[in-house]
Amino acid sequence: MDLKENERIDDLEFEDLKIIQNTKGFCFGIDSVLLSDFAKNIKKNSTIVDLGTGTGIISILLSKKTEAKKIYGIELQEEVCDMASRSVLLNNLQDKIEIINKNIKNISDTLGINVSDVVVTNPPYKKYGTGLLNENDSKIISRHEKECTLEDVIKQSFKILKDKGLFYMVHRPDRLVDIIYLMRKYKIEPKEIRIVYSNIKSKAVLVLIKGIKNAGEELKVLSPLYIYNEDGTYTDEVLKIYNKK
Amino acid sequence: MDLKENERIDDLEFEDLKIIQNTKGFCFGIDSVLLSDFAKNIKKNSTIVDLGTGTGIISILLSKKTEAKKIYGIELQEEVCDMASRSVLLNNLQDKIEIINKNIKNISDTLGINVSDVVVTNPPYKKYGTGLLNENDSKIISRHEKECTLEDVIKQSFKILKDKGLFYMVHRPDRLVDIIYLMRKYKIEPKEIRIVYSNIKSKAVLVLIKGIKNAGEELKVLSPLYIYNEDGTYTDEVLKIYNKK
Repeated sequence: MDLKENERIDDLEFEDLKIIQNTKGFCFGIDSVLLSDFAKNIKKNSTIVDLGTGTGIISILLSKKTEAKKIYGIELQEEVCDMASRSVLLNNLQDKIEIINKNIKNISDTLGINVSDVVVTNPPYKKYGTGLLNENDSKIISRHEKECTLEDVIKQSFKILKDKGLFYMVHRPDRLVDIIYLMRKYKIEPKEIRIVYSNIKSKAVLVLIKGIKNAGEELKVLSPLYIYNEDGTYTDEVLKIYNKK
Repeated sequence: MDLKENERIDDLEFEDLKIIQNTKGFCFGIDSVLLSDFAKNIKKNSTIVDLGTGTGIISILLSKKTEAKKIYGIELQEEVCDMASRSVLLNNLQDKIEIINKNIKNISDTLGINVSDVVVTNPPYKKYGTGLLNENDSKIISRHEKECTLEDVIKQSFKILKDKGLFYMVHRPDRLVDIIYLMRKYKIEPKEIRIVYSNIKSKAVLVLIKGIKNAGEELKVLSPLYIYNEDGTYTDEVLKIYNKK
């Protein structure tokens, strides 16, 4: 497969999966890997929509971690989308994964209402206008809510999900209030939260959330997930998620 | 001091403080102790309102852990209130703590609007109608939202707090969605959350939340608090909170 300028192929070290990334763009991180693991108990033959798929990392991992029938990866940025599509071909997953070049904001117009069993999303983390914006455009769109807000993501997820459909998201702890408030507002009830801490003494660095459309009210805050041991090495759980143990 | 039937005096092992508890009623637990510690950095000369003070445990601990000027402990149950008042006398804290026999639901009618620097609360945890109700009336009122809902607590807290006033609550993780939703709804923005886990591998058992009236949006999820070590002994942090280390 031919690569474009600044692109390279990375080995995902899971079932021989590979991914194309642009070294100058936004490369996938541990957040996407943790989300793919958090969402792995998805039922056989499910339809999954991956909102803001980026390089396609979550869709590609879930194609092997689950027995889903079809995964739609939605990505606004044309070049990133093209790269994700080539990663799908590279892994010979074109029957299972379809990458769609659309803005999340209106995605129910394209996909329809009440069509998906599952939504997974690792959306842009930062409110637009916060933080440093001296990056290239592609990184800004990946990291900031420039083209699509958290509210758009949750509102559209409600629309495309079937009744009792599952919603899985990874996000930053500083947005947890917004996330919970908006999920309840749009009737995707938060059912499980797992807080990711850097280590057993650090503050939280990520939150993993599972919601269910139109579900009853009762949350479980699961056992914590630590990335590092106190000596700075990866914890057994993270190594296992990365298939290194 | 004379004790009533089933009452006993317990030593709080902190600055010689003591408390009267009814062995057949709701006795204070680690939740109140953790909340008193979580809220200890309250400014000098603050006015604190303790909503649902029960035995008076939080008010009594805060009278020594802070340099507050005045603490109002609000308690609906007349007998519990009487017991808390006698604990205040027992500790010679009557100049600092006033126990008020009122329902939280209308407490702003008694205390006024925009009057308090701080609210602390360990409210009833369970929605009324959930769980087993085969307890005595006093325990039911202490544990269930029979006389006052979580929404009442948060709504009244907004009313009695001054602008930028502090709100500290301990609650169960299964109500975290309700808590966050209602706090934002009533403009007490959640600013810090500390999740309490039984140990480093267990799910969450309590949540400590700090909110600020009319504050900007940004949450910190602090380092986790563990009650037990893996061998079942108390952690150093908990021993320190209990003044045993």
